[in-house]
Amino acid sequence: MITTLEEMGQAAQNAAAELAILPAAKKNTVLNAMADALAAHRQAILTANADDLVNAADLPAKFVDRLRLTDARIQDMATGLRQVAGLPDPTAQADKGWTTDAGLHIVQQRVPLGVVGIIFEARPNVTVDAAGLTFKSGNAVILRGGKEALRSNMALAKVLQDVLANHGLPVAAIQLITDTSHATAQALMRLNGYVDVLIPRGGAGLIQTVVKNATVPVIETGAGNCHIYVDQGADLQMAENIVVNAKVQRPSVCNAAEKLLIHQDVAADYLPVLAAALRAHGVELRGDARARAIVPDMIPATAADWDTEYNDLIMAVKVVDSLDAAIAHINTHNTKHSEAIITNDYTASQRFLQRIDAACVYVNASTRFTDGFEFGFGAEIGISTQKLHARGPMGLTQLTTIKYEIRGDGQVRS
Amino acid sequence: MITTLEEMGQAAQNAAAELAILPAAKKNTVLNAMADALAAHRQAILTANADDLVNAADLPAKFVDRLRLTDARIQDMATGLRQVAGLPDPTAQADKGWTTDAGLHIVQQRVPLGVVGIIFEARPNVTVDAAGLTFKSGNAVILRGGKEALRSNMALAKVLQDVLANHGLPVAAIQLITDTSHATAQALMRLNGYVDVLIPRGGAGLIQTVVKNATVPVIETGAGNCHIYVDQGADLQMAENIVVNAKVQRPSVCNAAEKLLIHQDVAADYLPVLAAALRAHGVELRGDARARAIVPDMIPATAADWDTEYNDLIMAVKVVDSLDAAIAHINTHNTKHSEAIITNDYTASQRFLQRIDAACVYVNASTRFTDGFEFGFGAEIGISTQKLHARGPMGLTQLTTIKYEIRGDGQVRS
Repeated sequence: MITTLEEMGQAAQNAAAELAILPAAKKNTVLNAMADALAAHRQAILTANADDLVNAADLPAKFVDRLRLTDARIQDMATGLRQVAGLPDPTAQADKGWTTDAGLHIVQQRVPLGVVGIIFEARPNVTVDAAGLTFKSGNAVILRGGKEALRSNMALAKVLQDVLANHGLPVAAIQLITDTSHATAQALMRLNGYVDVLIPRGGAGLIQTVVKNATVPVIETGAGNCHIYVDQGADLQMAENIVVNAKVQRPSVCNAAEKLLIHQDVAADYLPVLAAALRAHGVELRGDARARAIVPDMIPATAADWDTEYNDLIMAVKVVDSLDAAIAHINTHNTKHSEAIITNDYTASQRFLQRIDAACVYVNASTRFTDGFEFGFGAEIGISTQKLHARGPMGLTQLTTIKYEIRGDGQVRS
Repeated sequence: MITTLEEMGQAAQNAAAELAILPAAKKNTVLNAMADALAAHRQAILTANADDLVNAADLPAKFVDRLRLTDARIQDMATGLRQVAGLPDPTAQADKGWTTDAGLHIVQQRVPLGVVGIIFEARPNVTVDAAGLTFKSGNAVILRGGKEALRSNMALAKVLQDVLANHGLPVAAIQLITDTSHATAQALMRLNGYVDVLIPRGGAGLIQTVVKNATVPVIETGAGNCHIYVDQGADLQMAENIVVNAKVQRPSVCNAAEKLLIHQDVAADYLPVLAAALRAHGVELRGDARARAIVPDMIPATAADWDTEYNDLIMAVKVVDSLDAAIAHINTHNTKHSEAIITNDYTASQRFLQRIDAACVYVNASTRFTDGFEFGFGAEIGISTQKLHARGPMGLTQLTTIKYEIRGDGQVRS
C-alpha cells in the first residue's frame, strides 16, 4: 500500500525504468486497450462525475462545464488515446551520431524524462490526455488534479491502471494523488529526486504558484497575451480576417489574440473597419487615446490592460508610431507565446520575425495556429512559454530527453 | 548608475535584445579584442588578484590555488576567448523547417536564451569563460562570484566591459554583482522575469543551495559519482587501463570515476591486479565485505561511501552478483553523469547502454571523456546532470533555445 508521496515517487521511478525499455508496439497495444476500457467503463465514469457535479453545483457555470463529462467527451478521450497510439515513438529515435577525435562513437539517443508530474485544475480529461502522452513517451506520471474533480479522476485513473495491470505493467506508471490538500501539492512541487519535471496545466494563478514554490524542474505553459500588429503595409481584408479569427474563433484559449496594435498611418482608414468587424462578433474594445480618437466609443484602456490575458471577447487596441514601437510594446508586455504581424512589406516582416521574443512569431497568419496538432506534432501536452527545454507546442518529443551512448575500444584520456 | 538587481536585470534584458541581432562576425571581433585586452591589462588583473590572495591567506591551499591568477592562467583565458571566436555561431542555425497542412511555412530557428545568470565560487577564470560563451551565443550574462575573488572578478569584468564599450555595445551584456552578500545571491535566484536561466558552477553545496532556493529555471551541473563496472566479459588489461585512467588522470573533476564494481566471476582474478594498479598511483581503496575478502587490506566501505563524490584519490569497490546487480546499484547511487562498462560481451554492452540512466553511458572507454571539448563541441559551460533542456556536456548550442518563425499568406483557423 502506497501511503506517502516519497513512496509514490519511488514507485514511479521503478515504473519509469520498466517503461523506458518497453517496445513501442506494446505501448500502442496498451493505449488502444485503455481507449476500449474507457468506453466499457463509461457508466462508472459518468456516475463518479455526477458525484463531482453535485458537489460543484454552487460553482460558476464555466467551471462546471469544464468539470462535466459526457458520452461525447469520454469518446473524445478514447479517440485521443488511439491517436497517440498511432504516433511515432519518440524514444525509438536517435537525433544523431558522430565519431570523436579519440575514435569514440557517440549516439545521441532520445530517452524518456522519467517521472512527469502534472498539476491541473478541474478538467478530468487531463487525467487521460496526460497519461496517454506520458505513457507513449515512456514516462511514469504522477497526477494531481483539483479537488472538485477527484471522483472523476479516480474513476478514470482506475480504468487506466486496470489496463496496465492486465498487461503485466506496473500500475505506478500512472498514479493519481487522492489527497487534494495544498500541503500535498506543495510537497509534490518539492519531490526532488523523484520528479524529473513538473508541468502545471491551468490558469495563471496555478502556474505562478508552481513556479514560485517548486524546487523540481518546471515547464511553464499556457499563459498567452498575444498581439496582432497591423502594419502600414497590411492588406485590410487579410488583416480583418486574421484579427477576427485570432480574437473570436475560440477566445478562452491561450493562443487567442488579446491585443491589437495598428500603425498610425493606416489607423484612420483601417481601425473603423476592424472595430466594426470585431464588434459584429460581440467583442468589447478597449482603446488607448489615439484609438479612441478614431473610434470614439471604445472603453478607455488602463495600464493594466496591456498585461492582461482576458480569455474572453475583449480586445485592447493601441495605435503605434512605427513598426519598432510595436515591437518594443510587444516585447515589454507579451508572455512570449505567439505574436503576429500583418504586412506585405518584406523588410517589416523580417524585422518583426527577428526582433520579437516569443515562442511563435507569425507573418500573415492567425496566432490560433500555435497548437501541437496544427504544427503537425500529432498531439500536445501544452504550450511552453519558457525558454528552457521546450518552447511553444509540446508534443511527445518534448516529453523526452537525450542520453549519449558512447562506444569505445579501450580509449583512455591523455 | 545601476544599483538594484532589478535594474541589472532590466539592463541585461535590454542588452540581450541587442546581442540577439548582432552578426557573428562582430561578436568574433569583440571576443578577439577581449583576448587582446586581457593580455594588455595583465598587470592590473594580477594586482587585483594579489589583493584577493592576501585576504585569502588563511584559507586552505587548494582553495588559494583555485583563486590564484598567473601570467599563464591569463594567457589561457585569452586563448579560450579566441577559441570561442573561432566556433560556429549557434544562433546562425535553423534546426529544421516544414510546411503544415494549413500551408504555413515553419522554421525552427535557434535564438539566444536571453539573460544567463552564473553563480560560482572562487575561480576567477569563470568570469571570462562564462562571459565568452554567453556573449558568443548572443546572451547577456549576470555573474555572481565568491567574495574571495571579488577584486579579481571586478578587474576581469572591467577589461571585458571596456571592450564592449569601445565597440559600441552595451556594457550590461556582461555584468558582475559586486555585492557578495547571501541576500543578493538569493535575490538573483528569484529574479524571475529578468533571468532566463541560472547555472551554478561549483561544489555540491552551492548547487543544492541554488536548486532549493531558485524560482528562475536552473541547470544543475557538475555533480559526478561515476562508476566503472568490470563485467565478467571484460579484458583485464583494458579494464586496468580504463579504471586507472578514470580514477587518477584528474581525480578532482566530476567525470573522474569514484566507484569500481566488479562481477563476482572475475573478482578473484581481476581485483588484486586492479587494486595493485590503483594503489601504485596512490589511490586509497574502500571495499565492501566481498572485495575485502579478496584484497584484505582495504578500508571497509560504509553505506555513505556509495553516494559520495570524493574528488580525490579514493575509490570504493564492490563485488556484484551480476550485470543487473551492477545496473541496479548504479541507477540507485549515481548522479546521472557518466557510467562505464568494460566488457567484450555484446549482450551485456547493449543491456548496460539501454538500462543505465545517465547523461553519458560508455562501453570500453574512460568516463573522463565526458567533456565538451572531447565531444567535439569546441567549448563547454558545464556538464548538466539534469534531464531538462541540456544533458551532459553543454556547449554553445545548449546556451540557446528555439523560436518558431511562421510565414503565412492570410491563414485563419477553422
